[in-house]
Amino acid sequence: MAAIDELRARLADLADLHALGSLAAWDQQVMMPSEGSQARAHQLAALDRLAHELAAADEVGEWLSEIESDGSGLGDLDRDIVRIARRDYERQRCVPAELVGELAQASSAGQSAWRKAREASDFGAFAPALRRNLELVREYAACFKDVPRAYDALLNNYDFGVPTERIQAVFTELAAGLTPLLADLPEARLLGALEVPYEAQKTAVEGTLKRIGVNEDRWRVDVSPHPFSESLSQGDLRITTRYEGEGVESLIAALHEFGHALYERQIAPELERTNLGHGTSMSMHESQSKLWENHVARSRAFAPVLAQELARGGYKIDAGALSAALNQIRPSLIRVSADQITYPLHIILRFELELALIEGGLDVDDLPAAWNDGMARLLGVEVTDDAVGVLQDIHWAAGAFGYFPSYAIGCLIAAQLWAQIETELGSQDAALGKADVAAIRDWLGERVHRHGRRLDTEALVEQATGRGLEVEPFLAHARALAG
Amino acid sequence: MAAIDELRARLADLADLHALGSLAAWDQQVMMPSEGSQARAHQLAALDRLAHELAAADEVGEWLSEIESDGSGLGDLDRDIVRIARRDYERQRCVPAELVGELAQASSAGQSAWRKAREASDFGAFAPALRRNLELVREYAACFKDVPRAYDALLNNYDFGVPTERIQAVFTELAAGLTPLLADLPEARLLGALEVPYEAQKTAVEGTLKRIGVNEDRWRVDVSPHPFSESLSQGDLRITTRYEGEGVESLIAALHEFGHALYERQIAPELERTNLGHGTSMSMHESQSKLWENHVARSRAFAPVLAQELARGGYKIDAGALSAALNQIRPSLIRVSADQITYPLHIILRFELELALIEGGLDVDDLPAAWNDGMARLLGVEVTDDAVGVLQDIHWAAGAFGYFPSYAIGCLIAAQLWAQIETELGSQDAALGKADVAAIRDWLGERVHRHGRRLDTEALVEQATGRGLEVEPFLAHARALAG
Repeated sequence: MAAIDELRARLADLADLHALGSLAAWDQQVMMPSEGSQARAHQLAALDRLAHELAAADEVGEWLSEIESDGSGLGDLDRDIVRIARRDYERQRCVPAELVGELAQASSAGQSAWRKAREASDFGAFAPALRRNLELVREYAACFKDVPRAYDALLNNYDFGVPTERIQAVFTELAAGLTPLLADLPEARLLGALEVPYEAQKTAVEGTLKRIGVNEDRWRVDVSPHPFSESLSQGDLRITTRYEGEGVESLIAALHEFGHALYERQIAPELERTNLGHGTSMSMHESQSKLWENHVARSRAFAPVLAQELARGGYKIDAGALSAALNQIRPSLIRVSADQITYPLHIILRFELELALIEGGLDVDDLPAAWNDGMARLLGVEVTDDAVGVLQDIHWAAGAFGYFPSYAIGCLIAAQLWAQIETELGSQDAALGKADVAAIRDWLGERVHRHGRRLDTEALVEQATGRGLEVEPFLAHARALAG
Repeated sequence: MAAIDELRARLADLADLHALGSLAAWDQQVMMPSEGSQARAHQLAALDRLAHELAAADEVGEWLSEIESDGSGLGDLDRDIVRIARRDYERQRCVPAELVGELAQASSAGQSAWRKAREASDFGAFAPALRRNLELVREYAACFKDVPRAYDALLNNYDFGVPTERIQAVFTELAAGLTPLLADLPEARLLGALEVPYEAQKTAVEGTLKRIGVNEDRWRVDVSPHPFSESLSQGDLRITTRYEGEGVESLIAALHEFGHALYERQIAPELERTNLGHGTSMSMHESQSKLWENHVARSRAFAPVLAQELARGGYKIDAGALSAALNQIRPSLIRVSADQITYPLHIILRFELELALIEGGLDVDDLPAAWNDGMARLLGVEVTDDAVGVLQDIHWAAGAFGYFPSYAIGCLIAAQLWAQIETELGSQDAALGKADVAAIRDWLGERVHRHGRRLDTEALVEQATGRGLEVEPFLAHARALAG
């Protein structure tokens, strides 16, 4: 077999193993009996280890070298496959297997310590595990000799090629634009809570998803403690939501996860079972979920559709009142329930803190105070309890540093893509009022989704909109909401 | 690492991959959207191939040789692990990878041809695919030089160590005992059909399973086109049933699958994630499902429990009438819906035919006539349509020759175990009437289940009952039913 065929066969195997891992992860959250968890951990660990061995094996390096030494006969697609395979291979090879094991152990221990510490609102009980995570993550970052800063190496895990300085510049502009909007929020925004019964929520989730193209030939919609999506193949897309409380978070979460899954659904078929057959980065993925959440689900134009579907479930609400409820702006303690304007400020705080933790400017013992100071400075919110302050997120407990920025960058890209859609296709208000999302879906498929991993984040944004990543479209969207 | 530790680590990986394959197979039948099937086939094929490579790798042979050259320090468990690992390894190694691939392809093509042929009741359309399967299966059997007959090599796939002659002797005795029972069936046995609504069936399935120990911490009960069970670990047991028609097949199937899953549930914990952590053979597995089906679910003593659970679902039936309906004896065309007495006769026919096909005494073209002759001879039934005759089962289409006998051997072992239980523990009638199966469950756990693959079929039967496989206990059970 030619080296390129050997390589492609190996990448197909890795894609298949990845899909099986996705299935096992989905099942664990959605279907598995509780007593299955210990065995499932073994199964996932074995799969990860075997996939790593196949991905980082010597022969992969030999195939790559042979192909690269005379790649003249390759078509465009194979050239991209080889380029990304080389990148992934080098990244896999430069981290010692022993460190990978230590990171996994520390992540597991960190999450366990964090759960107890959050329960007791006792940061001190979490500090040693966090310190251990940081030590190992710094060691991990040091394995990558080709990046100037440790934090760059971490960012590359989630968003390849976006340097720390770029995030800093973007977030500085973003904070400067958002902070003034919080200064004079109209008082009238304080609305009563919704009281939507479970049955009405469920009817509306199913009805709304069906109207935008979710059919049972390709999709599953289930319930899990934390909403997520897994794409097992382009013919097997699975999203979840949760029904907690009497708002319509279930609906918003379902449309958010739809955005993630649609991205995977519309990747070019020839990329399936290659190394390019997934969304290109965390921030690009988040841009897709945020586009459907912020610019479709929460939009005034789409509110009549949601109101119709809720009415089918027996809950009557005026579309205008629903839209107002979905867009209340109010600084608060918790990131995951923050509104569209304050959400990125929560992220900016986490970015500042984790950068300082990684690069040594901040000691773990000083983290709670720094958190509370940042909340006061960025959001004007006082934190009196670490459980709803510095202990609210699982990311650092799991050793996931460099992940947070993608949440805010995703919001920015979503706004930029949406502005481009309306510039090119005209206002989507009338279509959204009929739940007609075909034009949006097709535009995203053509401009963003089909490329898979062939383009990195900023190159893909530029391909889609003609311009690199910009802050202004999101600020314009925020100003309209705050107005 | 010592060779025994290397071996055990590899076996643990294989057990984990096997569990992931079970999950993927379960999901495919129960959860997967239809458009996911092509990708799932790739995923399962990749998993199979990688597992085969890991199982048959040179280093496994080296570890085994090193351990065998000085196994003096091994405990009993490790000795069994090494013994079975050597057996599995030799069996894996002696079949060329190319032939394995050809068998898989022919199996897939055979099933596809069979579906169309059965639809059209056109055996001729299936004959070429069957001939190809037979040719490859003969080639496969020829790889095993250590067995005297080709058919022995096939039997070893399902029931290691049970030779063809043994099956022939057992089946001869079995047919001789059963045939006379069909000669004078009482006419009064013809009962009206049940008319149990879906909701009552569902309530009874859930209620009955709950009463015999199926709780949601460890078990899932779902619906699939063909009932089956998968054990992903001892903490994650999954059974399915189906709701078709208005009988109580759903209930019987659920208890049948419970028997399979309970076997896996009660294997000794120290065998988990070794090569011994599954049921030892197809016939032993079938004995467990048949014990719960024939000797519990269909028993007169348990009928009040089923009647109570049906009543909870709104369907009233007298326990005696239900019991009579569950035990109607009537020769018929279709194996899977056959009664307890005629069922083994269907199997004996298939055994005779496949043995002749494999060993060359019967040509594919003559198979339908031989089938029809056999149905008349063994069951007194006339076959006028191949779709409900020779084309009714998928096994030969899939290349599964040597599998059928385990269905009948399972019935025999079930009766022998049941007789032993009642000999040792006394009649279970009173306990069954209260759905109290603790004594049965514990006896099976101690005598049968905990051994996993440490004992082969006949050795395990002897360990459990003090005697080798016998036909008489089943015949006694059959005579009681026919009486």
